[in-house]
Amino acid sequence: MNFSPPPFVTGLKCLICGATYPHSNILTCPSCGIEGILDVLYDYSSIDNSQFTIRNSQFSHWRYKALLPISPDLHPPFLTVGWTPVYDAKRLAKHLGIRKLFLKDDGRNPSNSFKDRASSVGVLKAIEFGFKTIACASTGNAASSLACMSAAVGLQSFIFVPSRAPEPKVTQLLIFGATVIKVQGTYEQAFDLCREACEKFGWYNRNSGTNPYLVEGKKTAGLEIAEQMKDEMPDWVVVSVGDGCTIGGIGKGLQEMKQLGFIERVPKLLGVQAEGAKPMLEAFQSGKDLVPSETNTIADSIAVGTPRNWRRAIHQIKQSNGEMIAVSDEEILEAMRVTARLGGVFGEPAGIAGVAGVKKAIQQNIIKSHESVLAVITGNGLKDVQSAKQAAGEALSIKPNIDALANALSAHLKIN
Amino acid sequence: MNFSPPPFVTGLKCLICGATYPHSNILTCPSCGIEGILDVLYDYSSIDNSQFTIRNSQFSHWRYKALLPISPDLHPPFLTVGWTPVYDAKRLAKHLGIRKLFLKDDGRNPSNSFKDRASSVGVLKAIEFGFKTIACASTGNAASSLACMSAAVGLQSFIFVPSRAPEPKVTQLLIFGATVIKVQGTYEQAFDLCREACEKFGWYNRNSGTNPYLVEGKKTAGLEIAEQMKDEMPDWVVVSVGDGCTIGGIGKGLQEMKQLGFIERVPKLLGVQAEGAKPMLEAFQSGKDLVPSETNTIADSIAVGTPRNWRRAIHQIKQSNGEMIAVSDEEILEAMRVTARLGGVFGEPAGIAGVAGVKKAIQQNIIKSHESVLAVITGNGLKDVQSAKQAAGEALSIKPNIDALANALSAHLKIN
Repeated sequence: MNFSPPPFVTGLKCLICGATYPHSNILTCPSCGIEGILDVLYDYSSIDNSQFTIRNSQFSHWRYKALLPISPDLHPPFLTVGWTPVYDAKRLAKHLGIRKLFLKDDGRNPSNSFKDRASSVGVLKAIEFGFKTIACASTGNAASSLACMSAAVGLQSFIFVPSRAPEPKVTQLLIFGATVIKVQGTYEQAFDLCREACEKFGWYNRNSGTNPYLVEGKKTAGLEIAEQMKDEMPDWVVVSVGDGCTIGGIGKGLQEMKQLGFIERVPKLLGVQAEGAKPMLEAFQSGKDLVPSETNTIADSIAVGTPRNWRRAIHQIKQSNGEMIAVSDEEILEAMRVTARLGGVFGEPAGIAGVAGVKKAIQQNIIKSHESVLAVITGNGLKDVQSAKQAAGEALSIKPNIDALANALSAHLKIN
Repeated sequence: MNFSPPPFVTGLKCLICGATYPHSNILTCPSCGIEGILDVLYDYSSIDNSQFTIRNSQFSHWRYKALLPISPDLHPPFLTVGWTPVYDAKRLAKHLGIRKLFLKDDGRNPSNSFKDRASSVGVLKAIEFGFKTIACASTGNAASSLACMSAAVGLQSFIFVPSRAPEPKVTQLLIFGATVIKVQGTYEQAFDLCREACEKFGWYNRNSGTNPYLVEGKKTAGLEIAEQMKDEMPDWVVVSVGDGCTIGGIGKGLQEMKQLGFIERVPKLLGVQAEGAKPMLEAFQSGKDLVPSETNTIADSIAVGTPRNWRRAIHQIKQSNGEMIAVSDEEILEAMRVTARLGGVFGEPAGIAGVAGVKKAIQQNIIKSHESVLAVITGNGLKDVQSAKQAAGEALSIKPNIDALANALSAHLKIN
């Protein structure tokens, strides 16, 4: 079956050598051979930005279909992806010592992470390019979102996970019917094996590090931020960084909304890595090519030693006059506590790393106290309960009578 | 501080003896002494139903503020509660052998369960009645939602959980800053101790079994179903039943929308209990008073042996010409698998019990194959990963090379 091409896509362009290609299923620039740097091009002059309005009642990221590489012949997965809420977290802002802090809770997507934006586009590209099977390697969220979206559209999915992937995420993708391959090794080994398997078995490769269409799904968070925050666009947008595809996508979305004349100014991007996995921060600071690193952090979703999208990410951060920073696991756990207790949002470690980065950036005078910030919470805390337990503290355990309660409370209040 | 009363609330009425009382903080009918049967009354003739329209851009359950017992002086918690998506789950409908099956995914609320509807109202009532501290007993979801909403509005919360509460739920409420009291006993013992503590320490009691205002929050799911499904109102609305407050609330919401002239017909309610906790089904069938039972089911959120709201629930089910049914744990696990794999929604056992009930009700000819059904998924599957693991199956574990993969897949495909 042949599908009409996405109406406003004009082709692909290599961000390194500038070579352009027609819309097609290529992952690596045939000219310079570098992966993860093909960018999807659109004819922006033909897109009517008046459709991006609160009066558009399609409250999902499909409201931006004109800016997505989606064939008009294909129905999006029926699950509601995107248009996640933005909260004005006043008490958390006060605690952090900043004028305004907004939290965009992407843990409220169908499979509870930001990655649903990418996977919902990925399954449509697989169908458009004639595949019946889709695969990816992931530390967890991309996997569970791919399993979820594949279930919604009826594709078979094969998922490669590293052995350290948290149990809730693995359970999530098994229940959605994916065939799960736990690779006894690192994320990088799972990634390489997935690519080899896609070539050998003829599966569509959803890996967002290399697939140029996936980042387009991720950019919808940037499009939404532009629309939701139009009247009080924050000075900074803060995003945790592992592979680089998420911040690269959000940056592109914001730039597009400026290009379309929808917003006047693009916020500065703050990319936040974990201290235990910060090869991109080092490349950002040195200006040299990225050197892969070991990883050691509780923030499993951003524990990426060999990011595939570092060029795209650094390009977007620099274009926004932004910055990068790294935070420790202790800072992430502390941020999980205060974001839940003062901001009402329970995020997973990687999802909350951005908030930890805000605190540190204020301390280092990168973010000024008079500025406003929007932090994207990229995943729900229930995705990784073992880490959350480290941040959460302990329950009081008592026998079922009021005296036992009074004694326990009195002891508890003495301590706390 | 004094707050204006909710503008359209005219008082409270006992569902048993008919006695009426002004709007106030009472839990038990002073006249007949039975708990869990006070109903909030409204002056419906003064409410303009034209506000319930897709053009109302407030896409949360606060769009129904006129139908909630909320003081106009109070700001709702800033978290986006309600207006959860409804999916037309075509492949799941086909699998179950029914014309239409809609899934309303209430696992997408802020703390990932239906209970956020009740807790978001509960914290406002606590503030309105002058309390600084709120407490509840819960098998988990009411607790985590109360902790979440308390964090959002800055109330102190004390939560009583039975010792078998799943770890993800306990972690969730600890991270939101609640003081958690794990009672070495059953839900009923936790419930009784919470009530005693509220009286002794002067805390506001959020227990939805007795608090007449909580069920008002729950009814917003019924209001939403009426609005979202106005043009193709299903023949049945299916809800899992533990305490009875949820189905009682949904039923009231649907009845109100009929009373307001917004819909012409109220769907039949199907209440689904677990085989291991079905005292209400027995009362429904016998027509006699409820006899408390032991509980034994993986569906912890509906494992209630002494439901407080059975009268309200049975009243609503009968008023709708509905039915009740019970499903086994095996049927719930099977429903978890097919709902995720064909419906794209990963629900917790109690949240999915409704779908298991649909299958059984079709087999028993209670629901006919030409009818349409909406099932409310009341909680996210990540809330109880241990149960989900029983339904999900196993990952393949391999060494990181393509031969190991090919061998594992070949063995896997032979088995499956």
